[in-house]
Amino acid sequence: MKTFLFPGSFDPFSLGHQDIARRAARLCDRLIVAVLKNSDKAPVFTADERVSMAKTCLSGIDGVEVILFEGLLVDLYRKLGASAVVRGLRGESDFRIEAEMAAVNKLLFPEYDLILLPCNADMVFISSSTIKEVAVFGGDISKMVNPEIVDFVQSKILERKARN
Amino acid sequence: MKTFLFPGSFDPFSLGHQDIARRAARLCDRLIVAVLKNSDKAPVFTADERVSMAKTCLSGIDGVEVILFEGLLVDLYRKLGASAVVRGLRGESDFRIEAEMAAVNKLLFPEYDLILLPCNADMVFISSSTIKEVAVFGGDISKMVNPEIVDFVQSKILERKARN
Amino acid sequence: MKTFLFPGSFDPFSLGHQDIARRAARLCDRLIVAVLKNSDKAPVFTADERVSMAKTCLSGIDGVEVILFEGLLVDLYRKLGASAVVRGLRGESDFRIEAEMAAVNKLLFPEYDLILLPCNADMVFISSSTIKEVAVFGGDISKMVNPEIVDFVQSKILERKARN
Amino acid sequence: MKTFLFPGSFDPFSLGHQDIARRAARLCDRLIVAVLKNSDKAPVFTADERVSMAKTCLSGIDGVEVILFEGLLVDLYRKLGASAVVRGLRGESDFRIEAEMAAVNKLLFPEYDLILLPCNADMVFISSSTIKEVAVFGGDISKMVNPEIVDFVQSKILERKARN
Amino acid sequence: MKTFLFPGSFDPFSLGHQDIARRAARLCDRLIVAVLKNSDKAPVFTADERVSMAKTCLSGIDGVEVILFEGLLVDLYRKLGASAVVRGLRGESDFRIEAEMAAVNKLLFPEYDLILLPCNADMVFISSSTIKEVAVFGGDISKMVNPEIVDFVQSKILERKARN
Amino acid sequence: MKTFLFPGSFDPFSLGHQDIARRAARLCDRLIVAVLKNSDKAPVFTADERVSMAKTCLSGIDGVEVILFEGLLVDLYRKLGASAVVRGLRGESDFRIEAEMAAVNKLLFPEYDLILLPCNADMVFISSSTIKEVAVFGGDISKMVNPEIVDFVQSKILERKARN
Repeated sequence: MKTFLFPGSFDPFSLGHQDIARRAARLCDRLIVAVLKNSDKAPVFTADERVSMAKTCLSGIDGVEVILFEGLLVDLYRKLGASAVVRGLRGESDFRIEAEMAAVNKLLFPEYDLILLPCNADMVFISSSTIKEVAVFGGDISKMVNPEIVDFVQSKILERKARN
Repeated sequence: MKTFLFPGSFDPFSLGHQDIARRAARLCDRLIVAVLKNSDKAPVFTADERVSMAKTCLSGIDGVEVILFEGLLVDLYRKLGASAVVRGLRGESDFRIEAEMAAVNKLLFPEYDLILLPCNADMVFISSSTIKEVAVFGGDISKMVNPEIVDFVQSKILERKARN
Repeated sequence: MKTFLFPGSFDPFSLGHQDIARRAARLCDRLIVAVLKNSDKAPVFTADERVSMAKTCLSGIDGVEVILFEGLLVDLYRKLGASAVVRGLRGESDFRIEAEMAAVNKLLFPEYDLILLPCNADMVFISSSTIKEVAVFGGDISKMVNPEIVDFVQSKILERKARN
Repeated sequence: MKTFLFPGSFDPFSLGHQDIARRAARLCDRLIVAVLKNSDKAPVFTADERVSMAKTCLSGIDGVEVILFEGLLVDLYRKLGASAVVRGLRGESDFRIEAEMAAVNKLLFPEYDLILLPCNADMVFISSSTIKEVAVFGGDISKMVNPEIVDFVQSKILERKARN
Repeated sequence: MKTFLFPGSFDPFSLGHQDIARRAARLCDRLIVAVLKNSDKAPVFTADERVSMAKTCLSGIDGVEVILFEGLLVDLYRKLGASAVVRGLRGESDFRIEAEMAAVNKLLFPEYDLILLPCNADMVFISSSTIKEVAVFGGDISKMVNPEIVDFVQSKILERKARN
Repeated sequence: MKTFLFPGSFDPFSLGHQDIARRAARLCDRLIVAVLKNSDKAPVFTADERVSMAKTCLSGIDGVEVILFEGLLVDLYRKLGASAVVRGLRGESDFRIEAEMAAVNKLLFPEYDLILLPCNADMVFISSSTIKEVAVFGGDISKMVNPEIVDFVQSKILERKARN
């Protein structure tokens, strides 16, 4: 059984993330979507909200589990017996960061491997930060996140803006 | 059963290609290494030689088949019932070409998908063209190709140079 | 009156070229599409065929003229009294080539200027060379070139392949 | 009448910004320079100071207006009836960010378009952040900003440093 | 006598930094490693700790001095009578930043020059920030920093994490 | 004594090459400019002409020698007792090729090292191929090559064009 691991901040979970998860799930037997609790950049959504959004968006896809995770990715990888980490690649500049992190993780655990899936052309510009930039001014984010979570994402970001 | 497809010119088959094939084979049930007969750049090695080198280098890896291929990649993909094409990624500049080809192939066959494996740090500089550049002046290529084919690659390139 | 100049080999004219021309035409009063006669890479289509394809694809757009051109781009620029050259930009790697050519042209003619239009996400992977690679194996190019020229492009490429 | 829109933080307004504005003004009938009030990175200069610097630097150029702006860029674009947003491009890495933002804006407003002007070779290294890094240690910024604002920029940055 | 200058934050000093210093020392008569006191990003290690780590890691290399530095790099360059600044280059994206900073420094002091040394393949993924990311979760950093400072780096980062 | 080695096709020798040689000569005791006889791309200028142009352009710089070279670069490097190869870097995309070639050369000869000098902003767009593209249509190349060789370069390219 092949287990792939899809880690990320998912702040919030975008249609781009959903597409990568959908495609990755077809390539393995079990896909673990790992929401990173620890993040340098203070996330807008709580860890629980990020897990919950991922579950909602991925509910229709077989073989996918969403977990919350804190610590070293290689420790989770080893514990799960994963065959590979999966990451979406939106452009040339992303590659360097992903390759670098993969090289370090192979140093820590030589069996570690990384699969990069190029984002589809119609999703390549959708990033979590773009969603937040558009939503904060009341812009329409309905083509960037799953319909099930549009209202939640929009209202949370506006509410947070009002508080600041 | 997941079938992955690893296409290339393999002119010649490098340790980098071998590493990608080895890693890809672990991620699927069956890996088809497809040697492209048709190539813009006139290859140094004949199609049969390229198939033969790939077979020699991959003989110890389970679940790998080497075939010769001519035509549209999506036609082979469809025929084999492949789940993904696999390609090694050596650097940022490779990404664009791979992403572009993948987008066109998805246009031709929407189920088409592409997996990119970042080359290991100690192999990132090994390319078929570098091997040829070194071998043509009698340089040592033993860290760049499988020991089983070093002599063949070296002598073929020198012999070809002598003829020109 | 602002005249913009859109030079290229257009071998063949793609939906990507058509989109850049359409957008550029909206930004100026007169758009000159200049088909470069001289080209390093021997073109598949004759100069006349390339002019004719461009005319067919752009027939519905106001303020556009198609001309055949040989020589230094700055000489044409000066003669036309152009305000800017327009080029589509498909990715990061294109930028360097365009910026370099623009710097040289400014050296030759200081009033020279260059406008880059980023290709739309759904067209970013369409290039003339991709069209040729797909068409040569009988692949479907109908989402990559104007319907008016699909048959011509397809048959010309297959006919040329048969001859070789 | 063609209206182009040149948005930015302009913190401070550099000779690079001035050159892009000058070139853009020649390409359209009316150029709106929009100083973004809202900015993630807390600006060194107040919104009013940034508007005032832009006005001073652009006072000699016909058809240019400077405004202060807060909100979604597409809303301003629509309101002004703009034909395109203009941005300077200093290198390959900038392209991705610009293309991404443009794709999102086209999603929100399909008529949105983006023009990228490559920075001139002798200005490509001038950025607002570089100016601040040099000025904070009393370095000479006279080749990076308009002579009319050199003293203001220099003293404001040193004064702010003294306060911290 | 040729003096080269190797400036950096060195937060902490990595095996990558050590390799660049070793190679640079072979190319000149005197190498000054300048630890930048001033840094935008609040460093994890104090200026004294960063100087001390650099001294420990470079103790076996002839012709190397480590100094603490605050201010404009060109002022130090001029004072030392340096022939060039040396920087390691880990990838394409680093280049732009280095080239930009060099262009600004040449503007301030025309004799300023910059030497870029490409990082060795087995060190290209080692960065100060990666070391911190791994160490904060107790990961093994022994292949990323000099054995003499591994314990110090590890304990300092964990101690700091405990305090937050 | 430090010997640096500056290899290239120099087809023709540009002001950019001249600037790199001038700067490299200041960094070492002896600079060997090695004109590569062997080249994939058939050069426009003969090996002797390329050596002669380099000698003319560098005649005023102390410590510089021009030689003709065929074979593996590491063999020349070893024979000369060189400390480093020097190459100019015009942009991000060049870096990959240079780093790759350096890694292969280190594999063949571990003491091999590479120094990259970023091209000055006002020369970054000058390449041998650009010079040929401009000269072939009679464009003015006087800002791209040394005044001593302008006429020779111009007439040779036009004469060659007439012959084809």
